[in-house]
Amino acid sequence: MTQFNETELTAAVIRSFDDTPDPRAKFLLQELVKSLHDYVSKTGLTFEEWEYAIDFLTRTGQKCTPIRQEFILLSDVLGVSMLVDAVNHREREGATETTVLGPFYVGEHKVMPHGTDVSANLPGERMFVQSRVTDLQGKPLANVPVDIWHADDEGYYDSQRPTYATEGPSSRARFVTDADGRFFFRTILPCSYPIPTDGPVGEMIIQTRRHAMRPAHVHFLVNAPGYEPLITHVFMDGDKYLDSDVVFGVKDELVARIEKRTDALMPDGKPAEVPWHLMTYEFHMKPGQGAAPKPMAAKAQEHA
Amino acid sequence: MTQFNETELTAAVIRSFDDTPDPRAKFLLQELVKSLHDYVSKTGLTFEEWEYAIDFLTRTGQKCTPIRQEFILLSDVLGVSMLVDAVNHREREGATETTVLGPFYVGEHKVMPHGTDVSANLPGERMFVQSRVTDLQGKPLANVPVDIWHADDEGYYDSQRPTYATEGPSSRARFVTDADGRFFFRTILPCSYPIPTDGPVGEMIIQTRRHAMRPAHVHFLVNAPGYEPLITHVFMDGDKYLDSDVVFGVKDELVARIEKRTDALMPDGKPAEVPWHLMTYEFHMKPGQGAAPKPMAAKAQEHA
Repeated sequence: MTQFNETELTAAVIRSFDDTPDPRAKFLLQELVKSLHDYVSKTGLTFEEWEYAIDFLTRTGQKCTPIRQEFILLSDVLGVSMLVDAVNHREREGATETTVLGPFYVGEHKVMPHGTDVSANLPGERMFVQSRVTDLQGKPLANVPVDIWHADDEGYYDSQRPTYATEGPSSRARFVTDADGRFFFRTILPCSYPIPTDGPVGEMIIQTRRHAMRPAHVHFLVNAPGYEPLITHVFMDGDKYLDSDVVFGVKDELVARIEKRTDALMPDGKPAEVPWHLMTYEFHMKPGQGAAPKPMAAKAQEHA
Repeated sequence: MTQFNETELTAAVIRSFDDTPDPRAKFLLQELVKSLHDYVSKTGLTFEEWEYAIDFLTRTGQKCTPIRQEFILLSDVLGVSMLVDAVNHREREGATETTVLGPFYVGEHKVMPHGTDVSANLPGERMFVQSRVTDLQGKPLANVPVDIWHADDEGYYDSQRPTYATEGPSSRARFVTDADGRFFFRTILPCSYPIPTDGPVGEMIIQTRRHAMRPAHVHFLVNAPGYEPLITHVFMDGDKYLDSDVVFGVKDELVARIEKRTDALMPDGKPAEVPWHLMTYEFHMKPGQGAAPKPMAAKAQEHA
């Protein structure tokens, strides 16, 4: 009889996946078994630790909602998201660097006209963002949808606010590039902010004495047909957390100098009422395929 | 500036846990980072696979309730639960072998008098279970609470039935050993049964062409003060799934020959109305400490 003792167990579990029809799934699962078993053996994991892990993972799943993804947050703070990003973008060939999607992409961004103030009702220093999407040779790409989202002046995303359900999105929009590959919009200067610490991931960050801060940034998701979807941030130069981002998302090339301006007119010729900031950043797209990430709400519906 | 690229990322994430006050937690987290990163690098995990994993883990958490623990089930079918059991029970010194707790321990078992028919209302072949709890020298241990639970004639635990909330437990009880270390009860012969396949874990089992069956068994949790809590099953000899238990829980020593009997009286002197089965099994306890596992409902309350 098969004895599932310590010496034979791992081999038996690996064998149990031998008939998996999809060879990639079989490989991933058998490697997963090896990794998990190696971890348990190497650490001599106790029952109490195993129970803690089961409970932690359960609570992480139960903290997720259509607008909050605690497992992505866990993947982020363990550097797994950035590593997945890295192994899938080894050759950039001059294309803009990528970074994590983060847990606050809720999808369904509404298309807005260029120049829109996406944070019209929010307090904060005003910022004008001008950008262009090109291929690797600098040829402008027209009609490309670009989703943007960022935190407010207090470090919260719209979806974290109790008012989200009634008031709808804020600091979150889609723009479509013009014939010259350009798009531009108004918003506020985003702030560095803590990831949510009211869930299991926050518990871990606090208990391990890490700080929970992300340096200020704007998220961009550029999805041009015939090009790899570009998921990235643009960071504000000078932020004190650039070197210790809690989700390890910073790359030098993604840090933009934000100019302080006092010009009476913004770049689109409309009046500026107060001193403002100018962010200028171009995105260079790499030819290829790939689906843009689905927002969590869409996933929730798939399984509903 | 710190560049969180592929070569520096893992080291940066490991460093981020350097200030963890608890040295064991620090070790477990830093080893976890190494294992996870090694897995992602080795497999070249794609975004789609990462997204699948995030979604799978989320749904696994969300399938959990106070009476269903899908993450324990996941740990079970990946052989992780049995390995944790093995690394924590390397030296048995004659003590009864251990196996997985399983996801159906809901705790709060009600103490019943010896001889009780714990499956009184259920169809199935009748079985009399007689048992004794001793130390490693065979000295009987008195006043020891023993939780027992098993599946019914159709392979379901009481907690899986919609009637559980109104009708309460069935085939689930606590007995307390007498001065001679003995306890006994009536029940039905349990059946081999599939683990629940209506959740993410079942999906994985089906998609990988594994079978979902567990060989027939009765769960025992023996919790004597001054001894290691004993979490085990007793399996029915002859079951066709003994060699391929979906959760890898079988050990030779835990397989009991179940005698078919036609005696008119059962071992406690009371009449048997139909042919019956006799299970005889003794539990030998190892001196030591350790807390019995908390039922999931109690855990849910801790975090409420």
